[in-house]
Amino acid sequence: MGGDNAPSAIVAGARVAAEEHGINVLLVGRPDELGDVGDLEVLPASEVIAMDAEPGSSVRRMKDSSLVRAAEAVRDGKASAMISAGNTGATMASALLRMGRIKGVSRPAIATPIPRLAGTPTVLLDAGANADCTPEMLEQFARMGAIFCRDRYGVDKPKVALLSIGEEAGKGNALVKETYSAMEQVPWGALGAEFIGNVEGRDLMTDDADVVVTDGFTGNVALKTLEGGMKTLIAGLFDAFGSSPEAEAAAGDLAPALEPLYRRFNPDTYGSAVLLGVNGVCMISHGSSSGPAMTNALVTTAELLETDVVEHLRTAIAE
Amino acid sequence: MGGDNAPSAIVAGARVAAEEHGINVLLVGRPDELGDVGDLEVLPASEVIAMDAEPGSSVRRMKDSSLVRAAEAVRDGKASAMISAGNTGATMASALLRMGRIKGVSRPAIATPIPRLAGTPTVLLDAGANADCTPEMLEQFARMGAIFCRDRYGVDKPKVALLSIGEEAGKGNALVKETYSAMEQVPWGALGAEFIGNVEGRDLMTDDADVVVTDGFTGNVALKTLEGGMKTLIAGLFDAFGSSPEAEAAAGDLAPALEPLYRRFNPDTYGSAVLLGVNGVCMISHGSSSGPAMTNALVTTAELLETDVVEHLRTAIAE
Repeated sequence: MGGDNAPSAIVAGARVAAEEHGINVLLVGRPDELGDVGDLEVLPASEVIAMDAEPGSSVRRMKDSSLVRAAEAVRDGKASAMISAGNTGATMASALLRMGRIKGVSRPAIATPIPRLAGTPTVLLDAGANADCTPEMLEQFARMGAIFCRDRYGVDKPKVALLSIGEEAGKGNALVKETYSAMEQVPWGALGAEFIGNVEGRDLMTDDADVVVTDGFTGNVALKTLEGGMKTLIAGLFDAFGSSPEAEAAAGDLAPALEPLYRRFNPDTYGSAVLLGVNGVCMISHGSSSGPAMTNALVTTAELLETDVVEHLRTAIAE
Repeated sequence: MGGDNAPSAIVAGARVAAEEHGINVLLVGRPDELGDVGDLEVLPASEVIAMDAEPGSSVRRMKDSSLVRAAEAVRDGKASAMISAGNTGATMASALLRMGRIKGVSRPAIATPIPRLAGTPTVLLDAGANADCTPEMLEQFARMGAIFCRDRYGVDKPKVALLSIGEEAGKGNALVKETYSAMEQVPWGALGAEFIGNVEGRDLMTDDADVVVTDGFTGNVALKTLEGGMKTLIAGLFDAFGSSPEAEAAAGDLAPALEPLYRRFNPDTYGSAVLLGVNGVCMISHGSSSGPAMTNALVTTAELLETDVVEHLRTAIAE
């Protein structure tokens, strides 16, 4: 029920995921508003938490909302994961309140893939769950990010870095400086990862680091800045391509070469975020998710489930 | 003497600024290393603060460095502005220690232009001078940014916004929430500006806000994330353009349409930052500044000097 194109695009994307990729999808929402769901099963939920609703109070009040029911389905083993393109805060709150936290986790964090020109993405966390953080929180995010990066992207020994404004150890704000020391104490080898120190914003789209850790305020600003920049530059390119008949013809010739780049860097398509630290898999999709984006999100969620990442997080955080 | 291409590209760019744009340039540095300076005057300085040197101690110790001498030239009225592509921290420290602060300014801030598809850029500050900020600092940055935006870009009534992770007044980290209230108390009308509330990272390249205020940590991360994103996407485009003879031919046809976009969004060329709050004009150029970038920086510095921005800041902050 959530997202700018819900429910039609969400249902369409879910049907493709089921029919073409063999993924077992359970739709949660108002049955009479979902349109033709094909063979998909529907878990009825009478309420919808609006995109701009206050998350905490909505989740507490709207017990028959699609988000709360989806989180309960995961808690109760009726579903292996939940995925939503709706209200991000309410998605997190539903997951946190219904599934609970993994034992030992102080605060769940949003891990978001940042695309690179080639290879696996950089995992950025926290991308917005916790606006104010302590060094202990960042250090825990880093450990969760390393486990996730190994499981999700098969990176053998992920390079974990702290987002800062200079590469030297002393650079950064007070939070980063304190966190740096805490990061040096983590037994990275035992986690199958390594700490490489600070990186800067310009390194997010490079292969310098596999996991980049920051507070949820900075992470969300960085993520949205990047998305805004990509969208602006892509819009400028399309303007240029349409600026004359000659340009249009040349752009047509270039389309096959540009298409993979567009697919990789278009913020609407490059992948869902995951809420790490809750007792189950909770995926956060872009509000603007199209049908194909939702199919893609469901396919990647199914891939993630094969890795047993929640169990790995449980073991790593308990240690 | 500073910057990746110094001194040759800097001198070449300065000569073009003087010879083709009539700008009176004073070079500061080691006379025997500057090459052919044409008719440009040289202020000798025997020391060079390296790009990666610790700023504060270098500036205190190296009294005959080009940066310190340049700042003294502004202080003593021998120059109207200083500009450097060298060590940013040392540039700021030189300006701060030799020119001093404008009376009433708590901390100087770096204001950086963020390009948009059309029209004037968005002014982002602080882009890195102060890693840890208070609400009072941000509120003062906002006032300085508004004055600068009016003077530099002729924006009649600049829209001033606070960088956050949600547009509603209550969204953000503790610093932003506290600053929001402080911002509401500023007499924006008297400053010829207006406060429009929060914006998000994705709004930096749009015309939603003319001045966007944040702490120097977040601002620097956002700026470098944007630069990294632009560079990555531009690199991807060049890869695609060279991927086949057909693509190469089509890209050649598109070049005239793409060139203005490239010029506008290439981080190496889109403009220098300015240190607001010191008693004089101090411009901070990209370390990677080429000759044309330096010419452009000198031309825009001359434009800025015509506006008497330092005097306007002095009046506005004293009030």
